[in-house]
Amino acid sequence: MTAVFASLGVYMVPDFKVTPWEVTGDIDYDVLVERFGTTRIDDALLDRLSSYGDVHPLLKRGIFYSHRDFNLILDAFEKGEGFVLYTGRGPSGDTHLGHLLPWLFTKWLQDVFDVELYFQLTDDEKFLFKQDLSLNDTRRMAYENALDMAAVGFDRDKTKIILDTANIQQLYPLALKVSKKVTFSTARAVFGFDNSNNIGSIFYTAIQAAPCFLASEEKGRNVACLIPCGIDQDPHFRVTRDVAPGLGYLKPAMLHNKMFPSLNGADKMSSSDPDSTVFTTDSKKTVKSKIGKAFTGGCVSAEEQRGKGGNPEVCAIFKYQFYLFEEDDRKLDDLVSRCRSGDILCGECKKHLTEKVNLFLEQHQKRREEARAYIGDMTYCGFEW
Amino acid sequence: MTAVFASLGVYMVPDFKVTPWEVTGDIDYDVLVERFGTTRIDDALLDRLSSYGDVHPLLKRGIFYSHRDFNLILDAFEKGEGFVLYTGRGPSGDTHLGHLLPWLFTKWLQDVFDVELYFQLTDDEKFLFKQDLSLNDTRRMAYENALDMAAVGFDRDKTKIILDTANIQQLYPLALKVSKKVTFSTARAVFGFDNSNNIGSIFYTAIQAAPCFLASEEKGRNVACLIPCGIDQDPHFRVTRDVAPGLGYLKPAMLHNKMFPSLNGADKMSSSDPDSTVFTTDSKKTVKSKIGKAFTGGCVSAEEQRGKGGNPEVCAIFKYQFYLFEEDDRKLDDLVSRCRSGDILCGECKKHLTEKVNLFLEQHQKRREEARAYIGDMTYCGFEW
Repeated sequence: MTAVFASLGVYMVPDFKVTPWEVTGDIDYDVLVERFGTTRIDDALLDRLSSYGDVHPLLKRGIFYSHRDFNLILDAFEKGEGFVLYTGRGPSGDTHLGHLLPWLFTKWLQDVFDVELYFQLTDDEKFLFKQDLSLNDTRRMAYENALDMAAVGFDRDKTKIILDTANIQQLYPLALKVSKKVTFSTARAVFGFDNSNNIGSIFYTAIQAAPCFLASEEKGRNVACLIPCGIDQDPHFRVTRDVAPGLGYLKPAMLHNKMFPSLNGADKMSSSDPDSTVFTTDSKKTVKSKIGKAFTGGCVSAEEQRGKGGNPEVCAIFKYQFYLFEEDDRKLDDLVSRCRSGDILCGECKKHLTEKVNLFLEQHQKRREEARAYIGDMTYCGFEW
Repeated sequence: MTAVFASLGVYMVPDFKVTPWEVTGDIDYDVLVERFGTTRIDDALLDRLSSYGDVHPLLKRGIFYSHRDFNLILDAFEKGEGFVLYTGRGPSGDTHLGHLLPWLFTKWLQDVFDVELYFQLTDDEKFLFKQDLSLNDTRRMAYENALDMAAVGFDRDKTKIILDTANIQQLYPLALKVSKKVTFSTARAVFGFDNSNNIGSIFYTAIQAAPCFLASEEKGRNVACLIPCGIDQDPHFRVTRDVAPGLGYLKPAMLHNKMFPSLNGADKMSSSDPDSTVFTTDSKKTVKSKIGKAFTGGCVSAEEQRGKGGNPEVCAIFKYQFYLFEEDDRKLDDLVSRCRSGDILCGECKKHLTEKVNLFLEQHQKRREEARAYIGDMTYCGFEW
């Protein structure tokens, strides 16, 4: 079992790229830890976390696998100083399961620690980085994404939705302070910018940095901030961490997750390949169709697979179970055994996953619709949608 | 007389630099017109303008000497489409006479055409470009500068003060749209940025562009915008003009003034050399002392000057009269003659100028204090100081 877990997402091919705006190739998450200079979540940290109750499967399975200063967050909590959570979404289209993953985990953190959450919708970012999107487009998408975020079930009284263009009054002074300490040289090195990047995109990281310090500004004292997010977002907060002490703030801490896999076998879901991506608003029929076409670790014929067995390590269906849809380790172990022995074939696996995903989405979509009634109450500083 | 006017500020030394953040060396204003690609204000344009009444001395004397599309502004006005004025100030310190010059001219434009004015105070800019200034500093300075602006006597009902950090909610969407169309390559070429510039400063020009389009946004139709300002600000609006059509807006038009000369004989007043700069809050005694030390075109001894005469072309005292303090051409001509013939010596000239400047400042300072009572009513979208 451990071997399967450990090997998932670890392919020793150096040809991959991970930036906040581009994730391509087979990602080597071990190399990323070294390249970004983050810290692996180790057993000692998981042990410490277990004192708060059951450790979340995403941590146990190494999907949230890397961090920056999470131990300092626990220190702050244990000293009674508290902390806030901060995560978000770049609204460039519909929400898919890959977006939900860190939010589900963030909800768990909010439940365990009973803390406030800032959820940032970066409509400005997506406008600046996507040639074809208007600000109206990204704002509309932000609202749709917010419904998904609310459907995850965050504590409504402790969760504030930031929409960049609506909350710029609050964000701008902080962004200015950050931006004054970041040279183009740094931005170029961290994000891979060149002369063709627009000047808005170059400034943007300062806007994403700002919410890290909102709680400190509001409370008039330094409040620690923990950011659960995809490892692809680390470059932003690496820059933020570098400038924070010079501004008199604590460095934001991070918990990094691996990318949610694609149904086509690739390392990351992509909205640009809808067939490989399950959106939160997909119908049951669509989900069935997408999962039906998914890449698996099966053989060419049923007969061959019954003899040789399948390979769960490369199977998108198995990865879905592993990432989100089977929290019970024993059931997952059993699935691996049955696949390898040829006891269960791909069709059956796909059917089981389809049922689980559709059940999940049915409940999610219901909560998503209910959220329309109260989402306006969750906006930061009461902006109007 | 004409020869003296024409030669003022025209020194054929190529070693000068004019950017929005740095003006050094002896400025060749003819070269600037070519370098920036602006259009000289010619007799035909002055003739056209004379149909609206007396042409302002700053135009007749070639201090407002260059423009972009001013003829289109007159077209729009004559067709009844109207236009708005836009100028401003980067609040990095006290207001001096050099700052007042374009404002006095802008008030004249407002009086002649009875149009609205947006006055932008760029507290964000000065924070980003001045290492030692905090946002609190630049905001405080913005208020002080606004008092000077109000003291000029703009139509209070038709003049709105924009403070960038206070009005960012209105400016940001427009700035985003501009910034998406400006590459780092362009910003580097226009402003001379390099890798060491901070990312806020690189983005900033988009914030200065935004007010050009506020009237169009407010009125829901294209409204022409005329910007009277120092030629050093042209690079910003050259960029703005390039992107305006792609955003569906009219290109902003401009009227450019030469820099107000320094008392030490240099081409531009500088706050960093207070002795060479008359601030609006200077006391009578201070003004007397500064003018007393000013660089003149006089000789070493009174006796020599009575024989050889003085040289008004290089004289700071004469330039002050020429720029702001003697609107009567005949009196100015007379002054030139008397100086050249040795009939009037520097001491007498300094005494006359001191009296004029102190009378001007006495009235200005009175109106400046009165402005405290109503300046809050002039803020754009009613922001609180």
